[in-house]
Amino acid sequence: MAQSSPMKIALVGIGKIARDQHVPSIAASPDWQLAATVSRNHSINGTESFRDVETMLEARPDIEVVSLCMPPASRFAYAIASIAAGRHVMLEKPPGATISECLQLKAKAQEARVSIFATWHSRQAPQVAAAKMWLKDKRLHRLSVTWKEDVRRWHPGQDWIWEPGGFGVFDPGINALSILTEIVPDPVQLKGALLQFPANRQTPIAASLTFRHPHADDVCALFDWGEEGDQIWTIEAETSEGHMLLSGGGAELAIDGNKLPTPDQSGDPLNGEYPRLYARMAELVRTGAIDMDIAPLALVADAMLLGRRIAVEPFYA
Amino acid sequence: MAQSSPMKIALVGIGKIARDQHVPSIAASPDWQLAATVSRNHSINGTESFRDVETMLEARPDIEVVSLCMPPASRFAYAIASIAAGRHVMLEKPPGATISECLQLKAKAQEARVSIFATWHSRQAPQVAAAKMWLKDKRLHRLSVTWKEDVRRWHPGQDWIWEPGGFGVFDPGINALSILTEIVPDPVQLKGALLQFPANRQTPIAASLTFRHPHADDVCALFDWGEEGDQIWTIEAETSEGHMLLSGGGAELAIDGNKLPTPDQSGDPLNGEYPRLYARMAELVRTGAIDMDIAPLALVADAMLLGRRIAVEPFYA
Repeated sequence: MAQSSPMKIALVGIGKIARDQHVPSIAASPDWQLAATVSRNHSINGTESFRDVETMLEARPDIEVVSLCMPPASRFAYAIASIAAGRHVMLEKPPGATISECLQLKAKAQEARVSIFATWHSRQAPQVAAAKMWLKDKRLHRLSVTWKEDVRRWHPGQDWIWEPGGFGVFDPGINALSILTEIVPDPVQLKGALLQFPANRQTPIAASLTFRHPHADDVCALFDWGEEGDQIWTIEAETSEGHMLLSGGGAELAIDGNKLPTPDQSGDPLNGEYPRLYARMAELVRTGAIDMDIAPLALVADAMLLGRRIAVEPFYA
Repeated sequence: MAQSSPMKIALVGIGKIARDQHVPSIAASPDWQLAATVSRNHSINGTESFRDVETMLEARPDIEVVSLCMPPASRFAYAIASIAAGRHVMLEKPPGATISECLQLKAKAQEARVSIFATWHSRQAPQVAAAKMWLKDKRLHRLSVTWKEDVRRWHPGQDWIWEPGGFGVFDPGINALSILTEIVPDPVQLKGALLQFPANRQTPIAASLTFRHPHADDVCALFDWGEEGDQIWTIEAETSEGHMLLSGGGAELAIDGNKLPTPDQSGDPLNGEYPRLYARMAELVRTGAIDMDIAPLALVADAMLLGRRIAVEPFYA
């Protein structure tokens, strides 16, 4: 799949996720060359750095692709500027702070005939593709998503997650929804939701969702950010031909209790969630395609739109 | 625009809006022939009636178009069934109970190559088209939407509006948003919202929204369902070339204080909001087009997704 000359890419937002995932994924791929970074305070050694995206777009017309991994609040303006400058755009999850932003980005990319990729990294977890393949030709009877983790452990001191637009438990929950919408053959719709808001906070700490599905009786999800014991990220399905358990956030897969071998990723630097996202982006650019699936964000918005809110005990960090 | 043989249409959901608007609009148009109704309890004299949509679709393959005007909760299943049977679909506002439903209906209609029309009747109010035309070539500086009405007067005893998914003040507010998204040349995105929830209710009684726009400084909306005095439905804009006031929910338009003549609708039975919706549907079917703009619903979902909630005094009917 490698081509002779790698495509030049700019990385916008040089935080932890950029350094841990984006930079090494780009470096390890023959598809890409990291040509510039954009960040107010940070840079990458040996790479030209800019403080704002307009300056970079102006100075470097040779850069074809812009990968945005800063927080969602400012991502929209940067994406619009990049598209207007004729560049292809890759977006960290969620692809926007709102549904309106996402719909408009897709429309703008179509108009400008550039590629746009709303990435959902959890969809690239090791066993998600295998789970999707296994479910493909089975009749689904029941499915339950359980995503229980300890917010104090994973987001210590992060107050923004409790502010309006901070998503609360939907910050991890949207990863579960990105897998759910990827592996279930027929699309689901949200039927109802119960949202637990700490009395002193603006976003939910727990949510239980029920979904409609063309033939499954019972499709549901339970998200809980107050789990101090074992951290659980599972999707369990009963079908006409057996039981499937996808666990560890997509890392492990068992059919009727038998664990399937996990694809070995250790020896291949191009494997893993983010390398697969960058491989997919290279394919989108080469084929002039758009992959802007907002289904996971739509389900979160739907839950906030029609969920029943109950107040629970205040949350203090 | 009339063609020799009218298209056969089925009307699903025979409530007040069907009798007051849909039936007379269909009857007055040379484009349409009301061929059947679907309703559990009601029928229209002289028209074949069915109790469920599947039976109608099976019995009447000659009916090309299905117009759905029952409550949003059951609309999705009926729309899916109609599309699967190869019929064109017209939807009362809002086009779905959730964003997911709307996105999926559009995708299904595209797959099945049938027309689908998400109607927004307020966009057909007498002066909306003139307001859009006037704003088209002006530079927008400021815009404010004010929608203040008395919920007790317009929705006496309707408890569902206060239940999860009942929209609350966004039930009228979405009409304002449908006009806003129609007349403003560049699309807006929701920046923030303040939502007032009565302490004993699940939906907001008031909301103030702020929007981002490519060049206007200040675009905002104020929705209030507790207005017992004058009922106000206005959109006011300041531009590079004067001031625009659209009032009466789109019925009247004034530029720099001078009221424009309202197009006379009294003499023409094909004029008015619903006749214009049916004329547009006829055009969509003839040209094989889709008009599924979910921007107004997306803004409501966005407000619920990132709005700041405050509790206000309990509401009793």
